[in-house]
Amino acid sequence: MDINILLFNDFEPLDVFGPMEVFLHADGFRVNLFTLDKASSIKSYDQISLDAKSVSDINKEGVLLIPGGAATRTLISDTAFLKKLALLASKATYCLTVCTGSALLAATHFMDGKRATSNKLAFDWVTGSNTQVNWVKEARWIVDDRLYSSSGVSAGIDMSLAFLADTVNEEFADNIAHDIEYIRVKDNNNDPFS
Amino acid sequence: MDINILLFNDFEPLDVFGPMEVFLHADGFRVNLFTLDKASSIKSYDQISLDAKSVSDINKEGVLLIPGGAATRTLISDTAFLKKLALLASKATYCLTVCTGSALLAATHFMDGKRATSNKLAFDWVTGSNTQVNWVKEARWIVDDRLYSSSGVSAGIDMSLAFLADTVNEEFADNIAHDIEYIRVKDNNNDPFS
Repeated sequence: MDINILLFNDFEPLDVFGPMEVFLHADGFRVNLFTLDKASSIKSYDQISLDAKSVSDINKEGVLLIPGGAATRTLISDTAFLKKLALLASKATYCLTVCTGSALLAATHFMDGKRATSNKLAFDWVTGSNTQVNWVKEARWIVDDRLYSSSGVSAGIDMSLAFLADTVNEEFADNIAHDIEYIRVKDNNNDPFS
Repeated sequence: MDINILLFNDFEPLDVFGPMEVFLHADGFRVNLFTLDKASSIKSYDQISLDAKSVSDINKEGVLLIPGGAATRTLISDTAFLKKLALLASKATYCLTVCTGSALLAATHFMDGKRATSNKLAFDWVTGSNTQVNWVKEARWIVDDRLYSSSGVSAGIDMSLAFLADTVNEEFADNIAHDIEYIRVKDNNNDPFS
């Protein structure tokens, strides 16, 4: 299965690299870093400069993962970006959001009527951006049908492991957590930051 | 303070990006990704292609952070690489190792006589590579004077936060953990993977 991670300038690094570390250790899953435009170099924090594939080079029926970051504050008003994102989300087997990535997917109306969570420091901004979503404040992550949404940054690691536990099995997820010496949060109600 | 993160091909992503996320949120700290040679593009897992500075462009009196990864199995026999690393380690204010990065620093003899830990899945290989180090198996991380060493992959995040708690203060580290919604391991004896 393809895990297609959307990159844009000023993404939050661990929103991408936390889930990526999990999926790189998952046999049968292939990670693709891509942008919504043509292949290009994507930057974050002036320290990271990363090559990303073109959207035309990915299997759109894979899993779409949307990170957060400072850029979401402007991308949420970029109608061309949101139109492309809406199309991708409609084709994806699952949509996974990390942190304020939820605000972008919510802006496409893909999440209307669904339960979801987001970053807790930015929670008022995210939830105010689309009140048609059933936002849940106290949650490490939330699952609603084909949508997985996580709280801020590090929570994306727990959500990714939970996704693998759900779609493969619990032992598969536990083995990856063991490989990367990650102490999993297995209870999505365990949210000390809400 | 400069946090100089050493990159090489086939580094383990979260060994780098976990600590990096912590230090990017630390006021007064500046992250630099560098290689021991001239500036170049560094690759990992065929998905990550990252720009790194030249070693000549960093402040060598900063903090040196050495990640692990598959490449350590060959770099440990690369005498030119180890000679450069030994020189850097001698100049650094602190040396931090994540995962099998400890094997590389140990091979420079910087760690001889010091207490240290490493990745638990690769523990026998790492500890067998230099028996002059006082290896500690059950530890999330170990501090010995200017040397911080962590267990595998994710443990680098806890070690980085502990480093900030020690060198700045506990509240500073707690605030960063809160910002990135990371549930800290504060007790370095808490090692479920040993």
